[in-house]
Formats: sequence, C-alpha cells, structure tokens
Amino acid sequence: MHSDCINSVWREVKRFVDLTADETCDLWLTAQKVGGRLEYHHKASSLTFTIQDGPQSGQTVPHVHIHILPRKMGDFENNDDVYDAINGKEKELKRKLDLDKERKDRSFEEMTQEADEYRMLFL
Amino acid sequence: MHSDCINSVWREVKRFVDLTADETCDLWLTAQKVGGRLEYHHKASSLTFTIQDGPQSGQTVPHVHIHILPRKMGDFENNDDVYDAINGKEKELKRKLDLDKERKDRSFEEMTQEADEYRMLFL
Repeated sequence: MHSDCINSVWREVKRFVDLTADETCDLWLTAQKVGGRLEYHHKASSLTFTIQDGPQSGQTVPHVHIHILPRKMGDFENNDDVYDAINGKEKELKRKLDLDKERKDRSFEEMTQEADEYRMLFL
Repeated sequence: MHSDCINSVWREVKRFVDLTADETCDLWLTAQKVGGRLEYHHKASSLTFTIQDGPQSGQTVPHVHIHILPRKMGDFENNDDVYDAINGKEKELKRKLDLDKERKDRSFEEMTQEADEYRMLFL
C-alpha cells in the first residue's frame, strides 16, 4: 500500500463495496498482521475487528478503515456486551452513558510514543 | 468455499490470524458481496462489519465468522453509540440494559423465509 501511495495511485474510497478485490485483500491481510502483533503487544487474548461502513454505521472519517481492538478477560463486565451493543436496541445507551464525556484526548507526546512502540512491532 | 466443502478440505479455524491468505481474501470478498446485497435488500444506507475474534471479544461460535449489519438512519439514537459501545468503558451497560431479555428467538419458519429471501439475492 505504501508503494502505491508513493506512486501516486493512492485514492480515497468511502465504502467497502467500492474497494477492488486487490485492495480488499491487501486491507484485510494487513489487518490480520496488525491484529496479531497488537494482541501480543498488549498481552491480550482476543481481538475485535470492525468496519463502520458509511455514515449510518457511525463512520466519522469518510474513507474505508478498520478498527482493531485488543481484548482481554474482564475488559467488559460481560464479554457479550459488545455484541449486544452492536446488535441493536440500545437506543437508551446515549441517554444513560455518554462515553465521550469520559474519554480524555491524549497528548501529542503520548500518541507519538504509542506510534513508536507500534512501529517496533513491524521491524 | 462451497466446492472446498464438497471436496472435504473444509476445516474449522478458531482465530482470524490462522486463516491462510487465500482464505482471508475469500472470506472478505464474500462479505463485501453479501454486504452490498443485504444493504440493497433492506433499503439500508450503511453497513457494520465485525469479527469477534476469540472468546474475550464475545465470540460465541468458536470459528471465524463475520457479522454484517445493514444500518439505517435512526436505527440508533446516535449513530456513534455503536462506536462508543465498541470502544470501551461501558462496563455499566450490562447492569443498565439487558438486551438479551428484549430479544425474541425467531421461529424456524421465519428463519427459513429469511434464508429464502437472501438466497434470491444471489441468483
């Protein structure tokens, strides 16, 4: 993918269905590799992979991208909470929990340090 | 994939990282096709794709599989609720909302009818 960028054939694709077969394979083979390294790095035991594909799925950055979340025992009170939350009927969630208010932005230095740590996983 | 099954090279794979490159591409090219048809069929405008990869991610069926959810405007009070819910810190969710209690099992006839409808999308 990086060589493609350098060769100026980079393009922004909004929806997953609009990726070519090569792009779809490249994206998910990369996610597979990244997921494995992140799980090991964070001493996790599972992963959640998600594409929010389109604005009605909560996509906030308007191009195809994958969320990869290392998961550990006990990170949710009940592991299936994520599934329940994805699966619907939690319209009350926003009223009961405003998670964004609890989430603090990290500093540029913190993000740089994390990027450096992750970079080391792919040497 | 079906011809593989018939030829007895079918195998159960628990974790996404253990799929071969060919299997990873096949799986996601199929999901891309299925997603497109489901979105059209349900008159939706977005999709959520998720792999619960391993038991700590809420995986209940112990082999790699993708959840594909057609999404529409207004299916969540706030589209980002799914993202918030995936993204953490909702340990209180289980206490506040037991979504499984609200979910009714569908009858065999209802599931057969849905399968027949979906089959028509791929003729």
